[in-house]
Amino acid sequence: MSKPSLPQGTRDFDAATVRKRNYIFNTIKAVFELYGFQPLETPAMENLDTLMGKYGEEGDKLIFKILNNGLDNEAKADKIRAGFEKVMTGRSSKDITERALRYDLTIPFARYVAMNYNQLTLPFKRYQLQPVWRADRPQKGRYREFYQCDADVVGSRSLVNELELASIYATVFQKLELPVEIRINNRKILSALAAQCGGAEKMIDIAIAIDKLDKIGIEKVKEELAARGLSNDQIHLIQQFLEISGTNEEKLALLKTIFTDNSNGQEGIQELEYIIERSQIASEASGPKSQISIDLTLARGLNYYTGTIFEVKALGVQIGSIGGGGRYDDLTGLFGVPNVPGVGISFGVDRIYDVLTELNLFPADVYSGTRLLFFNLGAAEAAKAFELMQELRAGGIACELFHETVKFDKQFKYAEKKGIPYVAILGSQELEAEIIVIKNLQSGVQEQVTFTGLRNYSFDSGSVNGQ
Amino acid sequence: MSKPSLPQGTRDFDAATVRKRNYIFNTIKAVFELYGFQPLETPAMENLDTLMGKYGEEGDKLIFKILNNGLDNEAKADKIRAGFEKVMTGRSSKDITERALRYDLTIPFARYVAMNYNQLTLPFKRYQLQPVWRADRPQKGRYREFYQCDADVVGSRSLVNELELASIYATVFQKLELPVEIRINNRKILSALAAQCGGAEKMIDIAIAIDKLDKIGIEKVKEELAARGLSNDQIHLIQQFLEISGTNEEKLALLKTIFTDNSNGQEGIQELEYIIERSQIASEASGPKSQISIDLTLARGLNYYTGTIFEVKALGVQIGSIGGGGRYDDLTGLFGVPNVPGVGISFGVDRIYDVLTELNLFPADVYSGTRLLFFNLGAAEAAKAFELMQELRAGGIACELFHETVKFDKQFKYAEKKGIPYVAILGSQELEAEIIVIKNLQSGVQEQVTFTGLRNYSFDSGSVNGQ
Repeated sequence: MSKPSLPQGTRDFDAATVRKRNYIFNTIKAVFELYGFQPLETPAMENLDTLMGKYGEEGDKLIFKILNNGLDNEAKADKIRAGFEKVMTGRSSKDITERALRYDLTIPFARYVAMNYNQLTLPFKRYQLQPVWRADRPQKGRYREFYQCDADVVGSRSLVNELELASIYATVFQKLELPVEIRINNRKILSALAAQCGGAEKMIDIAIAIDKLDKIGIEKVKEELAARGLSNDQIHLIQQFLEISGTNEEKLALLKTIFTDNSNGQEGIQELEYIIERSQIASEASGPKSQISIDLTLARGLNYYTGTIFEVKALGVQIGSIGGGGRYDDLTGLFGVPNVPGVGISFGVDRIYDVLTELNLFPADVYSGTRLLFFNLGAAEAAKAFELMQELRAGGIACELFHETVKFDKQFKYAEKKGIPYVAILGSQELEAEIIVIKNLQSGVQEQVTFTGLRNYSFDSGSVNGQ
Repeated sequence: MSKPSLPQGTRDFDAATVRKRNYIFNTIKAVFELYGFQPLETPAMENLDTLMGKYGEEGDKLIFKILNNGLDNEAKADKIRAGFEKVMTGRSSKDITERALRYDLTIPFARYVAMNYNQLTLPFKRYQLQPVWRADRPQKGRYREFYQCDADVVGSRSLVNELELASIYATVFQKLELPVEIRINNRKILSALAAQCGGAEKMIDIAIAIDKLDKIGIEKVKEELAARGLSNDQIHLIQQFLEISGTNEEKLALLKTIFTDNSNGQEGIQELEYIIERSQIASEASGPKSQISIDLTLARGLNYYTGTIFEVKALGVQIGSIGGGGRYDDLTGLFGVPNVPGVGISFGVDRIYDVLTELNLFPADVYSGTRLLFFNLGAAEAAKAFELMQELRAGGIACELFHETVKFDKQFKYAEKKGIPYVAILGSQELEAEIIVIKNLQSGVQEQVTFTGLRNYSFDSGSVNGQ
């Protein structure tokens, strides 16, 4: 008999953790719904073909593959007998594995859109909040099973989508009461910069170097750019670009003068301007008080972004970005449906959990479990308690009866350990008098309530910690 | 480029399906919470050791195993170098797989309880609603990835738990407005019957035969019992037992006369009596109108049940049981923590989904997505619409702005396809007059509303079908 353990990099979530995670999940989902996004769920398993080759060579190695089983071999034998498949000599990798666990939510979404393209109402706005699996080396804050949380609009090139997604970020973090900065940039501007530095093919080099600015500083970035073959003049231009500072409006004004001759750049600037302006007007009128800043040092590694890019930073804590996304030109080309543009954002829910914990921002009522524990003081008393509980539950009050008649001590301890704020004492005297004694365990206050009055008693107290 | 597809036996869930499934999930979870149960989530992957050998030989074959990857091999090499592990010659199965996908929720729960036993508040009441994976041959209604939904109390022998679980069943199905019969029996009575038929070891033979009564009828059951070596007298006794009919009270009275000399049987009868009586009293007072029936033909295949057993049947549809459970003596013995008794129930959520669909019992507002679509009638109009939407969203109204300025037709179609009940028309004239025209797409009624009046407009209409 082995001592039980969990696979490395995986976690059990106890009640308190599930409740806090659900607080984050439900907040985000509610906002997605307010913006007309609809839920989608895809299976944990995808065909290996669907996933392989989509995440680069390194990514392929990190995909968890599932071993074929007896039925798969039977099916294979059937196909061979029926002539659909040739008998192969030697072992192919298909003999071992044909399925794998989802590595992210983007590729399964692309697969879904490609499979159902003709049935979808376009623009198609979906959100998805599901676990993904990666065979990464586990370390602090990095797990082999973790949740991703994405919202995408596909089938539309309209900037209304970018505006809405920026606003979703602002609304979610306002509801979570977490101060953030929503950083925004545009790949078209970076591509204009590359053009001015001698060609669009320089874009990746420049983006990679810029991405490191936070960590290594401008001097090292300049060295790296030089090593990548950029001239002093070009490096000077990039430095000027990165040093553009001031308000959003000042940045936009400066950018316009730099990229006067580059239509791509001008387009990127106009897009930024549109999002910034509209967000501010709406925010002043009635929307969430978002802090959207143009960040010209924002590059985002993923190559497939082509327009607006987003990143969200929590203010007041040292942690990487807690959200990011951007516009892409082609979601489903890999699956045979070309030219489906879109834009999406994602929330780093594990990091958001860590930040809310660090800043102590989970609301007290997130722990709401059982409100009231009935002490078990005998068979007849317990029978009455059960009746009263059914009434309370019908009114939405979560309650429990201690499972056996034992000393008060033990029953108190159960309430305490489970964080139950009220206990109900119903002994033989109370039973006769048709009353019940309710004790608030925090304040120590106790009150007599009649059986019929119980249903109107308020069990809302201050904060309590759940198990 | 391959045409994308899904692995056999797996499903995508579109928005309407997710919403309907969540309606079931949320109803069940809310009731669990009302009864003091707390959520638990375990990882999809477990160590292969944790799962293997727990589900019988057939079960073992149906476990989806995960292929080891490069990191696992590195870790192994490290251990060998450090002297923790010997270099093995030849290939062992551990070289291929050490992890597998969860096959049910019971074994991961047992593993969790064993790992955390000393930290748990006993009795420990947990619920769990997560997918499980089985490499079964896919067929109608049988999937390779499907959800289970369990509630268990461990660390208590009190019948209060059985009473509460029966009441949870009654409450959930009342909330779902699904008429059901909650069938209840007790393994102690079956074991007493076995004892009267010549020995406790006959219990499994009898249970297996009884389990088939529904399908094959009493004559065939008698044949089977004879084939299993029971004498005519014994078979006669079993038939008498199975033919006990009448109300719960009549059944109990008869049972008491049959098993006068068997203390185990008497105990089982008392337990049944307790649950039936208490449920009826509470139900008459204020609880849900449950229909709990003693069903002496109920046996439930699983060997580990030792006391009360439950099964739930939907009335008015031809479908197997939509719930079941029972009491067991030892949950965690397999993981080194013996003598942890408990009792649990589970909900067959996929079947419940099918029944609610067949009986058309999903409430209309389950489809609630976007309430209002703003037509996009130009840049300035769209800008104003965005502002107004932010106000509405702050008030909890889900709304959208059509992404581009196109013909009315196309915008109407979007609202229609997405099941959006109201559209808002805000053209240049309306913009100037600071009004908006709201049209109810079901009734065709349209009304003028001022910008400031919009936030108080009621967007609750009749039922609409979502995408």
